[in-house]
Amino acid sequence: MDDIDAYLTAQAGQFEDDLCSLLRIPSISADTARHGDVRQAADWVAGQFRDLGLPTEVIQTSGHPLVYAETPKVPGKPTVLVYGHYDVQPVEPLEEWISPPFEPTKRGGNIYARGATDDKGQMLTPLLAAPAWLKTRGKLPVQLKFVIEGEEEVGSDGLNGYLESAAAKERLACDVAVISDTSQFGPGQPAITYGLRGIAFFWLKASGPRQDLHSGTFGGAVTNPINAICRLLASLIDERGRIQVPGFYDDVAPLSDRERQQFAALPFTDAAFKEQIGVKGLTGEEGYTTLERRWARPTFDIHGIWGGQQVSKTAIPAKAGANFSFRLVPNQDPPKIIAATREFLQKRCPPGIEIELTARGASGVVVPLESPYVSAASRAIEQGFGRRPVFIREGGSIPIVTNFRQQLGVDTLLLGWGLDDDNTHSPNEKFCLADFHRGIKASAHLWQELAP
Amino acid sequence: MDDIDAYLTAQAGQFEDDLCSLLRIPSISADTARHGDVRQAADWVAGQFRDLGLPTEVIQTSGHPLVYAETPKVPGKPTVLVYGHYDVQPVEPLEEWISPPFEPTKRGGNIYARGATDDKGQMLTPLLAAPAWLKTRGKLPVQLKFVIEGEEEVGSDGLNGYLESAAAKERLACDVAVISDTSQFGPGQPAITYGLRGIAFFWLKASGPRQDLHSGTFGGAVTNPINAICRLLASLIDERGRIQVPGFYDDVAPLSDRERQQFAALPFTDAAFKEQIGVKGLTGEEGYTTLERRWARPTFDIHGIWGGQQVSKTAIPAKAGANFSFRLVPNQDPPKIIAATREFLQKRCPPGIEIELTARGASGVVVPLESPYVSAASRAIEQGFGRRPVFIREGGSIPIVTNFRQQLGVDTLLLGWGLDDDNTHSPNEKFCLADFHRGIKASAHLWQELAP
Repeated sequence: MDDIDAYLTAQAGQFEDDLCSLLRIPSISADTARHGDVRQAADWVAGQFRDLGLPTEVIQTSGHPLVYAETPKVPGKPTVLVYGHYDVQPVEPLEEWISPPFEPTKRGGNIYARGATDDKGQMLTPLLAAPAWLKTRGKLPVQLKFVIEGEEEVGSDGLNGYLESAAAKERLACDVAVISDTSQFGPGQPAITYGLRGIAFFWLKASGPRQDLHSGTFGGAVTNPINAICRLLASLIDERGRIQVPGFYDDVAPLSDRERQQFAALPFTDAAFKEQIGVKGLTGEEGYTTLERRWARPTFDIHGIWGGQQVSKTAIPAKAGANFSFRLVPNQDPPKIIAATREFLQKRCPPGIEIELTARGASGVVVPLESPYVSAASRAIEQGFGRRPVFIREGGSIPIVTNFRQQLGVDTLLLGWGLDDDNTHSPNEKFCLADFHRGIKASAHLWQELAP
Repeated sequence: MDDIDAYLTAQAGQFEDDLCSLLRIPSISADTARHGDVRQAADWVAGQFRDLGLPTEVIQTSGHPLVYAETPKVPGKPTVLVYGHYDVQPVEPLEEWISPPFEPTKRGGNIYARGATDDKGQMLTPLLAAPAWLKTRGKLPVQLKFVIEGEEEVGSDGLNGYLESAAAKERLACDVAVISDTSQFGPGQPAITYGLRGIAFFWLKASGPRQDLHSGTFGGAVTNPINAICRLLASLIDERGRIQVPGFYDDVAPLSDRERQQFAALPFTDAAFKEQIGVKGLTGEEGYTTLERRWARPTFDIHGIWGGQQVSKTAIPAKAGANFSFRLVPNQDPPKIIAATREFLQKRCPPGIEIELTARGASGVVVPLESPYVSAASRAIEQGFGRRPVFIREGGSIPIVTNFRQQLGVDTLLLGWGLDDDNTHSPNEKFCLADFHRGIKASAHLWQELAP
């Protein structure tokens, strides 16, 4: 791989120029006034592929387009689907940016701009690694299929719709998918994210009396919708952090001893975590460590609640509402969890209250640690970063990973080069330039490792 | 009493003119633009007393003035403090009034105007009964002390402040107080309200992490302030409607068999009550009827709750809050209940959450049914309304009643001539003119009955 590594070293300055060029395009997918810029970013990405002589298509969707390109099939070697996104989050509050969000600026070894880490900088790492192979060896050791979308920050409707088509299933057929849109475990410690949680998200509304009532005259006889909603929500979990919906844990994939040992070996302490978030104590499911609870156990969180007034008015309100979610883990089935939750709440709904529950869900996923693709990724990252990655899970959900599994039948390798303090979605987003180059190198090596 | 009754009959037209005259003054105490009108109403009331030749004073307070007048002391007979208020609620939404709120209009035996029942119409009943005695007999059978305030609708700060002074305690010294500012049990069925609930009102705030956190990345380890507040509030009461704060029921005055029989004999059904408020079922403390629960048992109601957002954002919010109250009954002590509640919530506050609780309280009151004043009032109402009153309690709080007990050491007779559908505080407020005249007659007879 010396030829390829040498090419990457020689091109480092050009890579940073390319990154700045893409970062200057204000491709905010949520901002209708920026739709021309989003399209310009799609064209920029397509131009990169076309410059390499790859068959490239800008695929129209219900929203912003997908950019698709592929390298030739390599007989007997796997096909790798590389996913990324060229759209970015809004930039408000603008006054908090030290340098303007669309004027990429280098400071202290980092590049500052909206999209630096999420996901333009990370997305470019495999994209810039491809010419290293093509220019030095004329071909790649595996087939690459790139699908780069422009709606990740607004729900990926276009890509999700496209994936349901037979044409997409044929075109995107592959053996494994790769995404660089997550974080390392910490500075200098790369990671492979091999598990994500799923989610069951609920909107709950409770209606009581026809109109607000005086709590003196009516209190004690009329069921108060806020009282009811607090009781219902509190009944969903016990004081040991166990969710009370019947059958909730039936399908939960238990943590293996290997995983528990790996989590325990990570440089993580509750004390530092409490300091980071500014709390004096932690809670959660009994019998599990903080990392286990954050990455591999189901949770219950209420995200919003409302009812009545914040003034000192002694009324029984007519209505109250809340939204809440369970984070799910493999192999919990969201429709089954949603149905059981509905039955649980309906059964406990007190007289005089009517509840309305709507929900949506997404499954959690894990890539088996024994997968040869995981081993290949581990070796590639060691080449790129000079250090073996740790294996981590992530408590959030990346719906496209679930969708790749459901629509294409493949696992996804989450190989992220970001850091927790990159200010993703916030002012002063940054990406470490050294990690940018290490990520390009790791990507170039990944293809070699996937085709032994 | 034939002479007095005849006088009242002869003056009926004049009484209605007087009522309309007062109702035309837009004395909205909450509206700073109406302060001149509020003052005008005070002067109108003072003018009534002066026309009778009574020593009268308009007492300045921190806010709107009190109007004070008294009749001569009658040796060996009780002194009766008559309370009322000349201020009214705002009138919005104005477009819902069939006739303008300050143009009193007679329709279907009622007079429609803001303040018709609350409290100008009711307040005038004892005030107009006084000249019946003075003009026919030259004196009253008891001493009357009138205190009519202009801030009842905005918290009575002026009167409460005045009551704390030694001068007030001397001037308002009396044997019993009378207020006509409540309702009959129903049309044609007058009532004596002999009990009111007290209240302990709480503002609860819960703080968790320093800032909102992603529920995927942090959920399962960080205590969610909304989860915490729901659990804390739900823990305050069990599924049988029993409040769980230790010692909460220790001082609750039990319902006597006589009271329970009286309540049960009232023309009240759960079915009609459910229909009235638009619910399919009722709840409350086990072992008590709906009227018992509304009038004579403590309650727990959450009036407002907030935290997070109503959008589908999967965050753990940094803060949440709620306000709630217990309605208290005699002889519960608000400071004791507040302290016990604070300890109860603090003890259950989960790790990682800090709670802040502020509270205020007012005691519940009952006038013993065995009181000779209650019997006197019962006979007077029978004279005025042609029907014996029923004895009822009211679930709400009238703080001035507690204050009269605490500052003056006297019980209050709540003799109300209104009806539940009088649209108090709402558009199209009304007062039945027949009840207005019956109320004047009952007041005139009350003084006779109080001085047997």
